Amino acid sequence: MQRIYFDNAATTSLDPQVLEAMMPYLTEKFGNPSSIYSYGRESRLAIETARKSVAKILNAHPAEIFFTSCGTESSNTAISAAVHDLGCTHIITSPLEHHATLHTVEHLHKRGDASLSYVNLLPNGHIDLEDLEHQLANTADKTLVTLMHANNEIGNLLDMHGVGELCKLYGAIFHSDTVQTVGHFPFDLRNTPVHFITGSAHKFHGPKGVGLLYINENVRISPYIHGGSQERNMRAGTENLYGVVGFAKALELATAGFEADSAYIKGLKIYMMEQLKKNLKGIAFNGDPLGRSLYTVLSVSFPKTEKSEMLLFNLDIHHICASGGSACTSGAEQGSHVIRAINHNPNQVTVRFSFCKHNTREEVDAVVGRLKELI
Amino acid sequence: MQRIYFDNAATTSLDPQVLEAMMPYLTEKFGNPSSIYSYGRESRLAIETARKSVAKILNAHPAEIFFTSCGTESSNTAISAAVHDLGCTHIITSPLEHHATLHTVEHLHKRGDASLSYVNLLPNGHIDLEDLEHQLANTADKTLVTLMHANNEIGNLLDMHGVGELCKLYGAIFHSDTVQTVGHFPFDLRNTPVHFITGSAHKFHGPKGVGLLYINENVRISPYIHGGSQERNMRAGTENLYGVVGFAKALELATAGFEADSAYIKGLKIYMMEQLKKNLKGIAFNGDPLGRSLYTVLSVSFPKTEKSEMLLFNLDIHHICASGGSACTSGAEQGSHVIRAINHNPNQVTVRFSFCKHNTREEVDAVVGRLKELI
Repeated sequence: MQRIYFDNAATTSLDPQVLEAMMPYLTEKFGNPSSIYSYGRESRLAIETARKSVAKILNAHPAEIFFTSCGTESSNTAISAAVHDLGCTHIITSPLEHHATLHTVEHLHKRGDASLSYVNLLPNGHIDLEDLEHQLANTADKTLVTLMHANNEIGNLLDMHGVGELCKLYGAIFHSDTVQTVGHFPFDLRNTPVHFITGSAHKFHGPKGVGLLYINENVRISPYIHGGSQERNMRAGTENLYGVVGFAKALELATAGFEADSAYIKGLKIYMMEQLKKNLKGIAFNGDPLGRSLYTVLSVSFPKTEKSEMLLFNLDIHHICASGGSACTSGAEQGSHVIRAINHNPNQVTVRFSFCKHNTREEVDAVVGRLKELI
Repeated sequence: MQRIYFDNAATTSLDPQVLEAMMPYLTEKFGNPSSIYSYGRESRLAIETARKSVAKILNAHPAEIFFTSCGTESSNTAISAAVHDLGCTHIITSPLEHHATLHTVEHLHKRGDASLSYVNLLPNGHIDLEDLEHQLANTADKTLVTLMHANNEIGNLLDMHGVGELCKLYGAIFHSDTVQTVGHFPFDLRNTPVHFITGSAHKFHGPKGVGLLYINENVRISPYIHGGSQERNMRAGTENLYGVVGFAKALELATAGFEADSAYIKGLKIYMMEQLKKNLKGIAFNGDPLGRSLYTVLSVSFPKTEKSEMLLFNLDIHHICASGGSACTSGAEQGSHVIRAINHNPNQVTVRFSFCKHNTREEVDAVVGRLKELI
């Protein structure tokens, strides 16, 4: 049986055109981008061309774009720098953040480097902006606000401009984990009040092992990984040349296809919601799936039964890839911290389905049919 | 004209067999290694198979092997952990270390996390073990000793066992930057008194963007990059699947070819020394090139003249790739910190030639001929 891959929020297939762009750098063009001879400068040129392309797409300056090894490293860098270089002694975050944020802020808190508070959530899982403003207004400490642009499990989208304006008003630093939205939504960073955003190529048909960190030109930080002078002294280590080239190519393709692809994928998501409601009883959708939501993610809760508890296992047997939460936390026993934070109903089993342009309505039909059979 | 690549200590070409091993993971096998369905578990299996292979070659436990994004990240992790998790309040290093070490220890020192001292050097650039012992014996602080196994610029090899035994005797933690030796020398970690070593695949015909961190089973540290539970909670971020597969394959090939390749490359180095001495006046070799030295690296000092000051530039014009020092520091104006530390003669110009199995005597002849012409 053909595999149905509905876990595109975990990772996506590498686009053959991206691989094609990477191939010269995986074969004859292997020069070290930091070497001064022309053969190294060719590699450097490829990286700087990639940087310019990414900057242009995100409407940022090339000098604000840094390549890292992954979105997680980018978030660690930004959060740590906000505390150690920008003087933040208080962090406001949410319980729905990815562990790349949560574990980093918890680590800094445990070390005594910053106090930590969590913003309230609205019933649909959105951030309570009134509470955020209340917290910002009531702290004398220099504050870092770290809130993700789109939740990777339930798909909720943050009002990034609204949060950014609040941060501006109260002099806070704003970091947003945008790993689920870079390559999925247009960005206009020159007109967005944010200090740090992050990206990960493998979330939009680029290669694994390469991430993005945008650092607004108005903040000056020191590197998280110390060593050589790569990335203008901001990220040491020999550059992942083909990864960087692949990042830019994947972002270019995602941008070119955005209008058509996002409409198509959104159509799949809505179709799946309809088909699920039509065919299965007692299901619920988490977050705000038809409102401020990622078009790629659909989080579904099923009534807990002996059968539904085995759901992911049985989907796997039928070659359907979907997840209980974030892949990054799949090893954890305690289930999804995101679902726990928004939904106190222990009698539900939650599955995240996440789509890409390669998925089809036929696949949705097949998955809904299988779910009907399994539950 | 054909390019002559004598800068293999900066980076090496990707072996086509390594790329072949990586290709399935760059195409159809893209599942997230942390996903629980079988398609993800296949990716996980590839990573764990790579880990076992690397562990076996280095004679370590698989549980001691962690994959990172580069050697620099590995060194940052080890050094930071020695201070923050293992209680080291003093660091002993040498002025010859790679910036991945030097800038990391300087950063910790500047933050007030550890005091810092530098071990004396012998005239040939080797570490003065008597001074190291003296320093270890005369500090009451828990100490981290961080000394590289092979110097990337002059090729000097450390007596790793000797240093490790001293560290053991004085209860110090020992980290060694082995980026120039993993894949170039046999390791027997179960019988080597070291807590941390590092590696980088692109130094031995593997891919860029993937590193190794060996953590001895007797030390327990927390991650440097916080987030998901990848690498058994030791290094967060979606795994660079093809990078990891490529790392293991490159190490397997390097190990299989070690006897023949190292003898051949050593022959090239000695041949180049002979030809240089025969054809050029006033040259000197830095370090201990015929003694405890990397067979891959030859550091040559030429008398400073108007012509020799343009040497790297002119070599480049003639398609010869060689470097003044480490590629990681090539952007720096002040020249090599390694050469400055061992050689106070300002009237010399230093070039590092570094070889791999693909280089030939004909290339050596061509380079020596060109040097003769240029100087």
